[in-house]
Amino acid sequence: MEVTNRYVAIQAHIDSTTAPQETKFVANRYVTIKAHIGGAPKDSDFELKSETVPLSLAPGSQDVIVKNLYVSIDPYQINRMKHCSSSQKFSYLAAALAPGEIVDAYGVGKVVVSGNPEFQKDDLVVGLITWAEYSVIKPGGMLRKLDTMGFPLSNHLGVLGFSGLTAYAGFFEVCKPKKGEKVFVSAASGSVGHVVGQYAKLFGCYVVGCAGSKEKVAVLKEKLGFDDAFNYKEESDLAATLKRYFPDGIDVYFDNVGAEMQEAAIDNMNIGGRVAVCGVISEYTDGARKAAPNMIDVIYRRITIRGFLAADFTNVYADYMSTTCDYLRTDKMQSLEDISDGVESIPSAFIGLFQGHNIGKKMVRIAEE
Amino acid sequence: MEVTNRYVAIQAHIDSTTAPQETKFVANRYVTIKAHIGGAPKDSDFELKSETVPLSLAPGSQDVIVKNLYVSIDPYQINRMKHCSSSQKFSYLAAALAPGEIVDAYGVGKVVVSGNPEFQKDDLVVGLITWAEYSVIKPGGMLRKLDTMGFPLSNHLGVLGFSGLTAYAGFFEVCKPKKGEKVFVSAASGSVGHVVGQYAKLFGCYVVGCAGSKEKVAVLKEKLGFDDAFNYKEESDLAATLKRYFPDGIDVYFDNVGAEMQEAAIDNMNIGGRVAVCGVISEYTDGARKAAPNMIDVIYRRITIRGFLAADFTNVYADYMSTTCDYLRTDKMQSLEDISDGVESIPSAFIGLFQGHNIGKKMVRIAEE
Repeated sequence: MEVTNRYVAIQAHIDSTTAPQETKFVANRYVTIKAHIGGAPKDSDFELKSETVPLSLAPGSQDVIVKNLYVSIDPYQINRMKHCSSSQKFSYLAAALAPGEIVDAYGVGKVVVSGNPEFQKDDLVVGLITWAEYSVIKPGGMLRKLDTMGFPLSNHLGVLGFSGLTAYAGFFEVCKPKKGEKVFVSAASGSVGHVVGQYAKLFGCYVVGCAGSKEKVAVLKEKLGFDDAFNYKEESDLAATLKRYFPDGIDVYFDNVGAEMQEAAIDNMNIGGRVAVCGVISEYTDGARKAAPNMIDVIYRRITIRGFLAADFTNVYADYMSTTCDYLRTDKMQSLEDISDGVESIPSAFIGLFQGHNIGKKMVRIAEE
Repeated sequence: MEVTNRYVAIQAHIDSTTAPQETKFVANRYVTIKAHIGGAPKDSDFELKSETVPLSLAPGSQDVIVKNLYVSIDPYQINRMKHCSSSQKFSYLAAALAPGEIVDAYGVGKVVVSGNPEFQKDDLVVGLITWAEYSVIKPGGMLRKLDTMGFPLSNHLGVLGFSGLTAYAGFFEVCKPKKGEKVFVSAASGSVGHVVGQYAKLFGCYVVGCAGSKEKVAVLKEKLGFDDAFNYKEESDLAATLKRYFPDGIDVYFDNVGAEMQEAAIDNMNIGGRVAVCGVISEYTDGARKAAPNMIDVIYRRITIRGFLAADFTNVYADYMSTTCDYLRTDKMQSLEDISDGVESIPSAFIGLFQGHNIGKKMVRIAEE
């Protein structure tokens, strides 16, 4: 299956010779990569560009022009920015980005003008928009009307968005937990990790998280109710560290980082252990970093290592939504959000992901509602 | 769960001062390791010892003395011979062997004398016996009466024994194949691999195997009906090789070898691909050899890597038996067996596993029935 990127710079849609006189034009600033990115992203890899776009549609167009309000900043985007990634054809989440091309990303916006009968002006929408101030969504684009249900818009990118579904489906459908099981979560203060840990606690598991700073560890233990947490940067022997936190072994490892943390978790796993591989952020920016788990342990302990994408679990979407809304309304669950402001902050927000700057779901507020 | 080895040298059971005058004594030759083994096993690691044992039991004993006929020679035993293997407590298949201790192994034998009401003299039995000429099976030992169902005894160590169950459960229960899927089997002429490939063909999959010699490749294609096969020793870029044999990708990889072959298989996997890790013979004798599969691919392609042991799948035993007997009787399936003779040939038979000497199930015929 070939997945192509349907999102292109709005400039391509302008035909100024036929634009009616009354058309309002706005500047649309957007972020793009200057060239493919090989290692960790840095400021000079990105460019903030601007184009002038009409806020009207050509007759017969079914496009929707959206004013972006919040856009999601996710580690997986780095894989799309590489010159070549072997899985680029396997998911739209992996679809290659060309230099200069506008970046599509999950987010929330408001309809400015719609040629699509499903959407009206001023509708709040959620779906694949762009790292920009405005998005043009073609027919068939992944966009739907957003019912906020009384929650802040930002929640719909995080705990009530793709990150939340990833946590829910990954934990319940991939990890298949039993009450009382011992659960380890890496990048536990991240967008997905902090939600996984709370689901696991609420479900009745023993949960330990790791993160990269004292502050994050404190949040996990004091704010989110993890049973325990540690700063992996203070540890030199991860297998021994996990042995200390899990003297009776790990049943479930929710892996957001890969590499030696995955190896250490598998070293400490019990019979029938499950590793849900959600992301491997520590491997994304260094092609030589790889998890080489002990396969002899994988065999004798009957361990399952499974990669997944939330998009495959729409079957649990309704359960996920009702459960999570209930947890949030009753204050059983906290949403951690880390919000930067303005389209121009997208590059630094993105770069910061790989330096561990964010606590919780990273997003950029492009505009006030 | 602590698993201890219930099989000890028969010598320990002799109390010659109380042995009745009429007790018949025999020499029991057995194989043991001289010291823990670090790398590939070699002849000097083993010792053929002999003890004099009585062919009678002390009054009240519930032991069973078995004359061993065939014993299984399996790669996993090397993990038990190491100084330390992290999974030794997780399965009796991994239970540590001490130097000098007799090696327990799957096999077929005949009851010489029984204090256990379940067994009578001259019963054929199958289960965990020993790398020896005689075995003393304590109450609770893994032994059962063997109904040959008209098949040769050797079949009950291979295609109708643990190797066959491993192939069946691994393929059907772990790989969960669909008809028409593309299946890759490594060590495909080995004890498990050659059975997996035949199940997969009979089920309606496209099957390619790899093995380590021209002769083995010919057996796979000409005798066992694999769609294709290759000699991995003739290939320098395994990922490219698999791309050539699977232009449309691999759906199922039955892994018997680990290391770079696993990496190459995952490089070529389709969405939803499954890797059943049955064994990693190429990693057993070199602690530094590890598979480091591309986890980014594992995520985007939603790949599952699962280690398993046949002992967990007794639920399919009846199906496995009836299906396999039927295939053998109707000549739809071939059993490859590689038989050496005499207890003294055990070390070289075992060493040969790691040098690729065997074609099919390796076993040693200890005595004629």
